[in-house]
Amino acid sequence: MEIKTALYLIPVNISNAPFADTLPPGNLEILKGLHHLIVENVRTARRFLKRCDPSFDIGAVTFYELNRHTDLAEVGRYLDPLRGGEPVGVMSEAGCPAVADPGSLPVSIAQREGLKVIPLVGPSSILMSLMASGFNGQGFSFNGYLPIEGKDRERKLRDLEAISRRQDMTQIFIETPYRNNRMLKVITEVLHPTTEVCVACDITDPEKESIVTLPVSKWRGRKYDYDKRPAIFLIYAGTKHN
Amino acid sequence: MEIKTALYLIPVNISNAPFADTLPPGNLEILKGLHHLIVENVRTARRFLKRCDPSFDIGAVTFYELNRHTDLAEVGRYLDPLRGGEPVGVMSEAGCPAVADPGSLPVSIAQREGLKVIPLVGPSSILMSLMASGFNGQGFSFNGYLPIEGKDRERKLRDLEAISRRQDMTQIFIETPYRNNRMLKVITEVLHPTTEVCVACDITDPEKESIVTLPVSKWRGRKYDYDKRPAIFLIYAGTKHN
Repeated sequence: MEIKTALYLIPVNISNAPFADTLPPGNLEILKGLHHLIVENVRTARRFLKRCDPSFDIGAVTFYELNRHTDLAEVGRYLDPLRGGEPVGVMSEAGCPAVADPGSLPVSIAQREGLKVIPLVGPSSILMSLMASGFNGQGFSFNGYLPIEGKDRERKLRDLEAISRRQDMTQIFIETPYRNNRMLKVITEVLHPTTEVCVACDITDPEKESIVTLPVSKWRGRKYDYDKRPAIFLIYAGTKHN
Repeated sequence: MEIKTALYLIPVNISNAPFADTLPPGNLEILKGLHHLIVENVRTARRFLKRCDPSFDIGAVTFYELNRHTDLAEVGRYLDPLRGGEPVGVMSEAGCPAVADPGSLPVSIAQREGLKVIPLVGPSSILMSLMASGFNGQGFSFNGYLPIEGKDRERKLRDLEAISRRQDMTQIFIETPYRNNRMLKVITEVLHPTTEVCVACDITDPEKESIVTLPVSKWRGRKYDYDKRPAIFLIYAGTKHN
């Protein structure tokens, strides 16, 4: 297949779902045409490629690691093949690259130099949890991680609730998986009983996916265990549908 | 194929790209198992289903229209099949349902009644433009449409720029397609020369897709024509990568 000279942004599965359920087949065709891949971790990237297609010629691919150990001054050079006319891919560890991961740096460099950037379709826990929450999808914010320290976190949660109420916007954030239960407990202690909270967990997993929306008052009496599972939190205190 | 009893959120293509390039094949398998579909427009929904698979048995599907002419008090009844144990689908006119369209109402009702909701993967201009912009994907807001009136619009643009600078968040919004050029002109007149602006247009279209990021100062001298094309605007005045 003829591949355009571009920086391709290639989503990766976020669960054990069959690839046919979460990735367009065209993505694999493009992957097979790329010999340069910017990835967070070479080992897991290889595993993904082998799972995409056991016959994938991994030996023909040069990998460039981009993670918190990378000297960011080096990243510009990762695009040398693209400057020379060869397509380059960016892959995340899970989900869509350049959203909630370090992948946006090479994209930013490519845009600055007028190099073509092509995003591909794939699973995003941010977008899919928003769709399934029932909350306002016409106005929303993704806030990444909240502050870790107790008082700062509580203040941030109250701030997000106030913005949601005032601006009718859904507020989305994430937590380190082993602290998910603790986060939900704090949410139920700090926010107003009528504020709605959605916890979306193991998105796209055919067995374990769970996307539940309840008001704070109902979460308080509920049993749950989200620890060590990939989850995302959404709160909504607006008036849409109410 | 055995389909779970759930409300399925089914994305629709946003360009003339081959479906294999933007939709997972598993979505079609699920669509084939649904006999109840909530859609914005029955005619375009039928066309989509026929394009998915010319042998699709459309006669076996009951359609329920949800758009600005719908009496919202009726929407609860659209979920009667689901309450009776039959899966129901929600489709948008383009892109992901319940994001920037009326689809979130039935999702909200389903969540309130504890009915299972399952989002499927597909193209989203919001997410794909964010990926390809090079802007901060660890914090961003989608703001829907901005005010139409001149002074209100200018004030809103300056507000979004200030929030982006202060909170390091990408700000995303849309415009009615025939006013895209006018919107971009106002952006370049009102915002700071160093603020970065991405215009993403005809996303996923194999021929026409264009995703360009430039500072306001460079947009000012540039020729462009985005009118009557599906476009989305992103601005960023933060410090990531700078």
